[in-house]
Amino acid sequence: MQSPIEYLEARREENLAGLMQFLRIPSVSTDPARREDVRAAARFLCDALLQAGLPRSEIVETPGHPIVFAEDLRAEGPTLLVYGHYDVQPEEPVELWTSPPFEPEVRDGELYARGAVDDKGQVWLHVKALEAWLHTTGRLPCKVKVVVEGEEEIGGSNLSAFLRERRDLLRADAVLISDSPMFERGVPSLCYGLRGMAYMEVTVRGAGSDLHSGSFGGAVANPAQALATILAGLKDGAHRVAIPGFYDRVREITAREREAFAALPFDADAYRRALGVPELVGEEGFSTLERVWARPTLEVNGLLAGFTGEGTKTVLPASAMAKVSMRLVPDQDWEEIARLFRSRVLELAPAGVVVDVRTHHGGKAFLTDIDHPALRAAARALERGFGSPPVMIREGGSIPVAVDFREELKLPVVLMGFGTPDENAHAPDEHLSLENFHGGLRTVSYFLEEFAACAPGS
Amino acid sequence: MQSPIEYLEARREENLAGLMQFLRIPSVSTDPARREDVRAAARFLCDALLQAGLPRSEIVETPGHPIVFAEDLRAEGPTLLVYGHYDVQPEEPVELWTSPPFEPEVRDGELYARGAVDDKGQVWLHVKALEAWLHTTGRLPCKVKVVVEGEEEIGGSNLSAFLRERRDLLRADAVLISDSPMFERGVPSLCYGLRGMAYMEVTVRGAGSDLHSGSFGGAVANPAQALATILAGLKDGAHRVAIPGFYDRVREITAREREAFAALPFDADAYRRALGVPELVGEEGFSTLERVWARPTLEVNGLLAGFTGEGTKTVLPASAMAKVSMRLVPDQDWEEIARLFRSRVLELAPAGVVVDVRTHHGGKAFLTDIDHPALRAAARALERGFGSPPVMIREGGSIPVAVDFREELKLPVVLMGFGTPDENAHAPDEHLSLENFHGGLRTVSYFLEEFAACAPGS
Repeated sequence: MQSPIEYLEARREENLAGLMQFLRIPSVSTDPARREDVRAAARFLCDALLQAGLPRSEIVETPGHPIVFAEDLRAEGPTLLVYGHYDVQPEEPVELWTSPPFEPEVRDGELYARGAVDDKGQVWLHVKALEAWLHTTGRLPCKVKVVVEGEEEIGGSNLSAFLRERRDLLRADAVLISDSPMFERGVPSLCYGLRGMAYMEVTVRGAGSDLHSGSFGGAVANPAQALATILAGLKDGAHRVAIPGFYDRVREITAREREAFAALPFDADAYRRALGVPELVGEEGFSTLERVWARPTLEVNGLLAGFTGEGTKTVLPASAMAKVSMRLVPDQDWEEIARLFRSRVLELAPAGVVVDVRTHHGGKAFLTDIDHPALRAAARALERGFGSPPVMIREGGSIPVAVDFREELKLPVVLMGFGTPDENAHAPDEHLSLENFHGGLRTVSYFLEEFAACAPGS
Repeated sequence: MQSPIEYLEARREENLAGLMQFLRIPSVSTDPARREDVRAAARFLCDALLQAGLPRSEIVETPGHPIVFAEDLRAEGPTLLVYGHYDVQPEEPVELWTSPPFEPEVRDGELYARGAVDDKGQVWLHVKALEAWLHTTGRLPCKVKVVVEGEEEIGGSNLSAFLRERRDLLRADAVLISDSPMFERGVPSLCYGLRGMAYMEVTVRGAGSDLHSGSFGGAVANPAQALATILAGLKDGAHRVAIPGFYDRVREITAREREAFAALPFDADAYRRALGVPELVGEEGFSTLERVWARPTLEVNGLLAGFTGEGTKTVLPASAMAKVSMRLVPDQDWEEIARLFRSRVLELAPAGVVVDVRTHHGGKAFLTDIDHPALRAAARALERGFGSPPVMIREGGSIPVAVDFREELKLPVVLMGFGTPDENAHAPDEHLSLENFHGGLRTVSYFLEEFAACAPGS
C-alpha cells in the first residue's frame, strides 16, 4: 500500500493544478463587486474537501462572506482544528504585476498569483494532506475539523461570532494555522507571537468644493497640508509613535528573547538589499527583528488628496484622506489605542479644517507557550518534512483569529506557515515557492501523526 | 442702422448657443488622449473669427497645441492685441459635477460647463463683440489682433516662443486679457496685479515594491510618513512658508494699497460661508485680500500613496507623491524659488528614503501702472457696460502670459475679466453668470471705441 507521503510525491502535478484552479477565482473580500467570486471560492473549496474524502463539508452562511466547515471525526484520539482563509487582498496596483494576478503562472520554481502564499496556497496543503491519508490508509490519524473563512483580509467579525456561537461544533484539542511565514527560505519555523492592530482612516475637510489654488491659496487652510501636519505629528524623531499613552501597556522584550532573536541567522544587509531600501530605519534601541516582531509601529497605508494624474492642476483640495494602521504587541488594547489615536489626531488638527477619524477594525496581539505539546509535535513534523529542526520566531503581521481561537475556544494555537517573507504577500507579484509547497504538504501530513501521538489534551 | 450694442442685444440666444458649441469640445490640454479635441477647439475658434468678419484668421502650429491668430488692420488708429486661451482644466473629479462638464447647461441664470468662465466664455465675448462691429458698421473702431493659445493650463512655453519670434506680426499698442475675475458679482473690476508661480512635484521612494505593513512595519522608513514630514516642514505655525530665503525678494505691500484693499466692499464672513470653511486662516499680520493678492503662498495640490480605495489594505507603500505649487509676488524669481524649494525638501527628507523633486513649470508675478491711458479707457468701458465705475484689484491667480507680453513685447497689459470668484474655475460645476456674459459683451464692444480714442501710444 502507498504511504500518504508516496501518494503526495506521485501527485505533485495534480496538486499544483488544483491550486491553480483555486487561485483563478478572484476572491477579493474587500470589493463589493467581487461578492460572487468570493462565494465561488468557498464553493470550490467545499467541494475539494468532499473530494478529499471528508464525510462532512459545508458552506456556513454569515451576514458577510460564507465560512467553509468540514470534519472527519472517524479516528480515535485528539481533535485538530485547522484554520485558513480563502479570501485574498486586492490586486492593485495591477500594472505592476509581471503576469496577471488571477492567472497563476510558474516561473523559476515559484507559483505567481494573488493568494498563492496568503492564504489559498497554504489552505490547499491541508486539503491535499487530508486527501493523502484518506486515499491511502482510508482514515486520518486523528480527528480533524476544518474552518476556512472569507473575511480575513477585511477583519470581518463574522468568524468571531461563529466561534462564539458554535463552541460545541468546534470543540477540539488544538488549532493549526498556516498563514505565517517561515523565517527565511530553507529554515523551517514555528511562530509563537503575532502583532495585533488597529486600522484607522483620517479625513480632513476644508472648503465645500475644490478651489483654484491661485485665487484662494493663502486665505484658507489646505486640507492636504493639514493632513501632513497631523501625520508628521504622530511620529517623533526617534521613530517612536508620538501618541500619549501608546506605550503604556507594551510588554517589554525579555532578555531570553533578545538573545534568541540575536542568535537567528539574520543578515541585516541582505534583508535591506532584498527590500531595495537605502537603509533600515526604526525605533531607536531595538534590532530589526525586535522592531517588527515585538515592538508596536504606526504606518501610513494610503494617502489621497486633490489632483494626482499626469501633469499639473492648480487645485486647493476640498479634502484629504489617510489610511493609517498601527501594529500592536502584548498587552496593548486595540480599542484603547484607537481612542488614543483619535484624541491625538484631533489635538494635532490645525485651525480651519474639520477632521474625522474612523476605526476600520482591530485585534489583539498574540503570544503562545513555546513548550506546549502541540507545538512540540509541530516541531517534530517540520523536522521530518524539511530535514532540520525549526527555529522559534514571532511575526510582525496580525492573525486576529489566532487570538479569537485562544480567547473564545480556550485552545492552544500552532502557527506553522510555509510562506517566506520575500513572497510579496499583499503586493504585486505575490508568489509561493513550490519547494515549500511540497515540503509543507509532507509536513502537514506528518503533523497529523505527531499530533495524534502527543496527547495535547493531557 | 443697428448699433453694435443693439446687434448684441438682438442676438443673445445665438451668442450663447455658439459658446455652448465651443464648450462641448473637451480641450483638456494636460491630457495626451485629448490632443485631437484641443485641435478641434482651435479649429472651431479660428472659423468663428472668420465668420465674425475678420479678414485673417489662422491656425499657427507649435511643437505643442496650436495657437489661433487673427487680425483686422483695416481701421485707422491704435492696435489692440486681444489674448485668451481655448484650453481648459481637467474635469476630475467628474462625479462631483451636477451636469456633465462637457454638456453645457443653463440653470438659474448661470451657464455650467468646464471652460465656461476659464477661459472659453471670455474668449467668446471678444469674438462676438468684434462680430457686432463688423456686421453693423462694417469696420472696427481700431486695429485688432487676436492671439488665443491652447497651453495656458499646462504652462506651455510655446506661446512665449511665438511672442519672441513673431514680434513684427504682434506689434500693437496694448494687450487686453479677459481671464481674471471681477471683485464680486455686480462689481466691475480692473485687475492690475497677478501672482506668479512655481509648480513642483515631490516623489519619495522607499522599498522596491509595496510591502506588507505587518511583516515589515517598523523596520523601514514609510515613504508616505516621510512625505508628510517633508510637507509639514514647509510651513510654520504662523502659516508662513518655511523655506529659507523664500521671502527675501518679496515686495512689501504699500500703505496706499493696504488702504485701498481695506476700502473694498469685502465681507469676510460672507466669503467664509461661500467657501464653506469653518474659519479663514492664513499668514499672520495680513488681511484675507492681502494674503491672496499680495503675499506668496505654498499649497499642496495633490497627494497619492499606497491603497486609497474602499476598505482597508495593510500595505507599506513603495512610494508617495505630492504636487505642490507656490504662488509668488513681485519681485520673487520663480526659478530661484524652485531651487530653494528643492534644497529645503531634500534637507527635510528623513533617512531611509530617496527623494526626487521635479519642477513642472513656473512664471513671474505681474504688476502694472494703474494710471496708463489703456487702463483708463478700460475703466470707462466698464462703467458704460455695467453702469458703475470699476474697482482696482489684484488677483491671487497667475496669468504668466501677462508677464510675457510685457517682457517680450514691452506692451501695457489690461486685465479686464468678467468671471466672479465663486464660479468654480478649476473645480467641479464651473459656471459663468449670463448677466456678466452679456455685460462683458457690451463692455468689450465699448472698449474698442474707448481704446481708439485714448491714444495709448502717445
